[in-house]
Amino acid sequence: MTGDRNSAVCVLGTGLIGGSVLRAAVATGYRAWAYNRSDVGARAARADGFDVGTDIAAVLTRAAEHDALIVLSVPMPAIDTVLSDVRTFAPDCALTDVVSVKKPVHEAVHRQELGAHYVGGHPMAGTAESGWNASSADLFRGAAWAVGVDPGTRAEPWTRVARLALDCGAVVVPVLAAEHDRAVARISHLPHVLAETLAVAGAAGGDLALGLAAGSFRDGTRVAATAPDLVRAICEPNAAALTEALDDALRLLESARDSLRSDGTLGELIDAGYSERDRYDTLRRWDITDIRPGDENWLERLAAAGQRGGVLRTLD
Amino acid sequence: MTGDRNSAVCVLGTGLIGGSVLRAAVATGYRAWAYNRSDVGARAARADGFDVGTDIAAVLTRAAEHDALIVLSVPMPAIDTVLSDVRTFAPDCALTDVVSVKKPVHEAVHRQELGAHYVGGHPMAGTAESGWNASSADLFRGAAWAVGVDPGTRAEPWTRVARLALDCGAVVVPVLAAEHDRAVARISHLPHVLAETLAVAGAAGGDLALGLAAGSFRDGTRVAATAPDLVRAICEPNAAALTEALDDALRLLESARDSLRSDGTLGELIDAGYSERDRYDTLRRWDITDIRPGDENWLERLAAAGQRGGVLRTLD
Repeated sequence: MTGDRNSAVCVLGTGLIGGSVLRAAVATGYRAWAYNRSDVGARAARADGFDVGTDIAAVLTRAAEHDALIVLSVPMPAIDTVLSDVRTFAPDCALTDVVSVKKPVHEAVHRQELGAHYVGGHPMAGTAESGWNASSADLFRGAAWAVGVDPGTRAEPWTRVARLALDCGAVVVPVLAAEHDRAVARISHLPHVLAETLAVAGAAGGDLALGLAAGSFRDGTRVAATAPDLVRAICEPNAAALTEALDDALRLLESARDSLRSDGTLGELIDAGYSERDRYDTLRRWDITDIRPGDENWLERLAAAGQRGGVLRTLD
Repeated sequence: MTGDRNSAVCVLGTGLIGGSVLRAAVATGYRAWAYNRSDVGARAARADGFDVGTDIAAVLTRAAEHDALIVLSVPMPAIDTVLSDVRTFAPDCALTDVVSVKKPVHEAVHRQELGAHYVGGHPMAGTAESGWNASSADLFRGAAWAVGVDPGTRAEPWTRVARLALDCGAVVVPVLAAEHDRAVARISHLPHVLAETLAVAGAAGGDLALGLAAGSFRDGTRVAATAPDLVRAICEPNAAALTEALDDALRLLESARDSLRSDGTLGELIDAGYSERDRYDTLRRWDITDIRPGDENWLERLAAAGQRGGVLRTLD
């Protein structure tokens, strides 16, 4: 752990991501405990030695007493209910979340008048598995962890959230909520929709086609093995940005299809795709070293740096 | 090797697939040699101890002398040229290919009047890498290897081709050329086009989006790292079937997009994709044990069995 003050962390929801935050926080020296709605999940976590209860009032009262950083780790559809409990039992705690969209959470937080202590977060890690049993203290090692820099964000909770992300082994990507949502629509939600599409269009070829399927189909449909409710909870709250990304994908595919039909070639798509995959493969994150939380215009400067691919690897 | 008669194999083209056939054939006891157009590729193979020349006349004359099974392992655009050499120097040899489409090769073979000895083939294996240096004797282990059963196919060359596939560690999927091409359009060529689309639509989010990209984007774009000329050579000769698969994918995506725009949900796609990925994951190949090459109606019976997901694991 990189700091010893405010080292209490309260995780709400011990699924894959929340469970991994709990494990990683404990592993790096935080005092961390959690709430989970289902008794089965809570018992599984307790059996592994973690402090997890099913009484949200008790869990949040403890957070208020210890000035804990609260980490919302429930799916988007459950956010309003949980925020209402936070407002009742721990309204002055620093608050972050690990939900896959940021604008809807930001809005929900402000509806509950919890905005003063809130900093949005999103660790870019996951597996096709879900639930406590898939969680791991190492899930975030080397991952990007988006941390919100929207106007009005305060330096003290921001530093706590960024520190937790770094302590979990991630690098911090500072980002505005709306820009985050447009970005993840393209690199996380669109991949899900394309994987589902490939699974359906592929299987339409019957057992012969599925029996001939090799690496390209297996990898291209991997995330279609994610539980459908989870996929919907991830993608649908980002409808506007995802619609835009789908429009782009449809234009590219239609153009390739039309070109294939008219002149037997896939047109520009293949060179463009190769070149952009190469850009991804060779992308080098650069380190933001000259902006400290609380500096003049720190939020605007961090947002601009994040937009250009900058990351924070330390707060010292 | 499962038989000792007709154990000579002549591979034309020592890229990823041809090179792997050469390596696997030698490893399992065949007398095998090869031709490669580029001297660089031939020298790399010779440096690894393989018998590879750049004089196609000499290589094919030797094939004729030893009654070798010729394996065409060049990209579709080079097939006509190589077939014309086969017709000149080794017109009576058993002939197969490892090209990713079967109807266009079948037609080219018949244009050269080489159909009497021809059996189409397609091992379903590959990597994003290409060339001799990516080849491996183990590439086909556990893979499906499509072997053609179109009307007119003769039992003797069919058995030799199926035996080579089995000796390389693959299972044999008997299939008609047109059915093969429709199937691979869905589970091999469509994945390529969707991967290229995702790479372009994802990178349109800029360095911020690419920096946030994690497993779903990485896996969904993996095959976009394949050399563009190779992707075109694989996909474009299958234009008709690929257009049909793209039409299906476009319908699914448009429906999801329209649903997202009108009611904020992805509609039926997510459940359908999950269910079809599960069907793929749980697909069990069953063994064809009661049909021998040369039996009455063996071609029709093998085609029907392959269509229902049957495979051959032995010829004995």
